[in-house]
Amino acid sequence: MQLNRLEQQLQFIIEIDKLKNVLRQTLLTDGSRRENSGEHSWHLAMMTMILAEYAPEGTDLFRAMKMSLIHDLVEIDAGDTFCYDVQGYESKAARELEAATRIFGLLPEEQGKELRLLWDEFEARVTPTAKFAAALDRIQPFLHNQQTEGGTWKIHNINRSQVMKRMAPVEEGTPELWDFILAEIDNCIDKGYLKNSCGTDNC
Amino acid sequence: MQLNRLEQQLQFIIEIDKLKNVLRQTLLTDGSRRENSGEHSWHLAMMTMILAEYAPEGTDLFRAMKMSLIHDLVEIDAGDTFCYDVQGYESKAARELEAATRIFGLLPEEQGKELRLLWDEFEARVTPTAKFAAALDRIQPFLHNQQTEGGTWKIHNINRSQVMKRMAPVEEGTPELWDFILAEIDNCIDKGYLKNSCGTDNC
Repeated sequence: MQLNRLEQQLQFIIEIDKLKNVLRQTLLTDGSRRENSGEHSWHLAMMTMILAEYAPEGTDLFRAMKMSLIHDLVEIDAGDTFCYDVQGYESKAARELEAATRIFGLLPEEQGKELRLLWDEFEARVTPTAKFAAALDRIQPFLHNQQTEGGTWKIHNINRSQVMKRMAPVEEGTPELWDFILAEIDNCIDKGYLKNSCGTDNC
Repeated sequence: MQLNRLEQQLQFIIEIDKLKNVLRQTLLTDGSRRENSGEHSWHLAMMTMILAEYAPEGTDLFRAMKMSLIHDLVEIDAGDTFCYDVQGYESKAARELEAATRIFGLLPEEQGKELRLLWDEFEARVTPTAKFAAALDRIQPFLHNQQTEGGTWKIHNINRSQVMKRMAPVEEGTPELWDFILAEIDNCIDKGYLKNSCGTDNC
């Protein structure tokens, strides 16, 4: 069946409702349940608005907001890959590329291409806009882990060097917030929310 | 304690996580559970992007997206008032005004005022931007009710005239989509998803 333009757009809008059923490892700040990728994307888009003044020079804030809204759509097919899952990360790129083709392909062609470009830009993390959005995407679950007294870090036995590696994009993406993140990592270790080392000699 | 600017912003970002626990009457399109206002706001912001070409002349699309993201924040304190709950609507405005003062008041002053202006504009539905965002806010649950074969309409025994009244802002807010909505209402009645009348002589 040949769908007209509006039908294609509505089909896409209905399809993306599935993102609300994709569960992340992150807990809500009250610890009551795991967060889904739809509400996470909303929270991230809100952060692009509230923390706009910390964006690097050259950031297009409207574009950063759109990027935040669409950055996880591929998870509808590819699922959420836990950021500390080394094995899962090996197949992540291929799974997500296939998902991007199908999901953005539901839209009228030029609109699908526009969203695909936006997603590619986010993934590449080269432009200031993408660096800013990616930095906030690291800060959001960090705040949740801090609020839940270690949340996902404790469940998965995560240590400082893993968090440092994960948070590294913040240094370039929101330079003004980097000192805050470093101080908060120390703070979380002092409070027992995060382990200082992996507990073996091979840290 | 006097909070500095960044602390105020982070406090706000953490506070709004609560919107993910505010349940709406709307079901997800797969009928599996009720939607929360955080993920609903994400879906709506996505719609401002995908359906941008149907916005009335003079719409500021970036502003419409920001409006969609923040339009339900007051529900953190005021709760979600079901759109067909006549009694609830009597106290809705007062409850939401109080909530707006507290929630936007968490932010640095000028930023709080900016968000408050955005919310006031959405509520007033006078500007093309607000009319567009409000129209999409009606279309989103409409699509969910259609996808769930009547969803909330069936649960709450809603009929055509109630839906027509609820959908009225679409005519001005996305004029090009109004015919589609009218046709879909007929369609939903034909399929038995929505009742044609209230079943009494007082419809």
